[in-house]
Amino acid sequence: MNSDTPKAVVLMSGGMDSCVTAAIARRTYQVAALHASYGQRTEKRELESFHKLADHFGAFSRLTVKLDYFAAIGGSSLTDKRLAIHDADLSNKDVPNTYVPFRNAHFLSIATSWAEVLGARKIFIGAVWEDSSGYPDCRPEYYEALNKLIALGTKPETDISVETPLIYQSKREIVKRGVELGAPLHLTWSCYRDSDLACGVCDSCALRLRAFQEAGVDDPIAYATKPEYARI
Amino acid sequence: MNSDTPKAVVLMSGGMDSCVTAAIARRTYQVAALHASYGQRTEKRELESFHKLADHFGAFSRLTVKLDYFAAIGGSSLTDKRLAIHDADLSNKDVPNTYVPFRNAHFLSIATSWAEVLGARKIFIGAVWEDSSGYPDCRPEYYEALNKLIALGTKPETDISVETPLIYQSKREIVKRGVELGAPLHLTWSCYRDSDLACGVCDSCALRLRAFQEAGVDDPIAYATKPEYARI
Repeated sequence: MNSDTPKAVVLMSGGMDSCVTAAIARRTYQVAALHASYGQRTEKRELESFHKLADHFGAFSRLTVKLDYFAAIGGSSLTDKRLAIHDADLSNKDVPNTYVPFRNAHFLSIATSWAEVLGARKIFIGAVWEDSSGYPDCRPEYYEALNKLIALGTKPETDISVETPLIYQSKREIVKRGVELGAPLHLTWSCYRDSDLACGVCDSCALRLRAFQEAGVDDPIAYATKPEYARI
Repeated sequence: MNSDTPKAVVLMSGGMDSCVTAAIARRTYQVAALHASYGQRTEKRELESFHKLADHFGAFSRLTVKLDYFAAIGGSSLTDKRLAIHDADLSNKDVPNTYVPFRNAHFLSIATSWAEVLGARKIFIGAVWEDSSGYPDCRPEYYEALNKLIALGTKPETDISVETPLIYQSKREIVKRGVELGAPLHLTWSCYRDSDLACGVCDSCALRLRAFQEAGVDDPIAYATKPEYARI
């Protein structure tokens, strides 16, 4: 990689999906690493993972933003401590209470503004539709509409688009892809609960553990409890 | 108006266009007033105007957010003090250096998240395409694409759309509309420069003064200098 290598902004939450996404982006692009805290319970843990991952991927720039207003807006168990984080029910297909209203649009707006100033033509996000929690802002059509909005809402000479390399993959495939690419999954944090060890039973832990179990790979992070979730 | 009156989130910068937009929204909706500061030079003046306008329109809720990260991103003379605010050249059709990359998407993402939690089905923004500064995120197609994004990115039972009642109006028509509706234009602040009086010569002052002159109406705010801009 040198200064002629094209640039990409990579959204990195600190979780598994964005880690694998960054590993994919890094093969072709210089990485500008973007992290947004929004008053979620685990923001400190996620930020630690973000910085370790940005170091690992040799990010040429990093931007961390704190969106305090999400706490004022409320409406999600991730940002409103009066709402409980439920244990996982992976058979439930409703939008879960961890949904943060229209959250990804905030992150992607920041990524687009930054990309326009940096001269980056790609934005990577680890959105996963299949096998995901059912968040509406993870579906493929959402990203098609977003790319149209970006084309219309930036300067005429700007050419930025959002890439979602994992969107059609299952979580099991994402684990396998991460292992193949040597992605540093041991540095990631996925749990929705703020404790020393990942809880193993929230939606996010359950999806992650099931993915590792189905992929036949040991999850390198530590859990308070490690139930068996695999369907196969 | 009573508690059955439907709710709308109204983006209020403190300027003339959003003031007239709020006056339009107020006829049908209870107003939830949203203001975003983003490190622009005049944020204090704009915020003062916002609160006076929110009082005037009897806002049932107000949300003020501070998006500090725009200063870190840079790229605009409004947020980067190393770039000069040029005096107006109303014949120039290029995107001016006051353009803040992809700015409106940030504001509208916040408005959408808030509307979803409040149960508001409309978001009002005073975007003006004709006779505007040539910002790409003020064009009608941009709002069509945004409404599609909102439909796809929110919960299935949510039905939120963005209204741009002034988008096809000239600034002259907006002044006339504001006067007809009794909008409190004396409470607004439009100037891009941070001084005691509006400068009268930046792009925003020039567009405003020309509009009042063409409408044959006295602008009720004070200016340091008041050039003649009218084309007619």
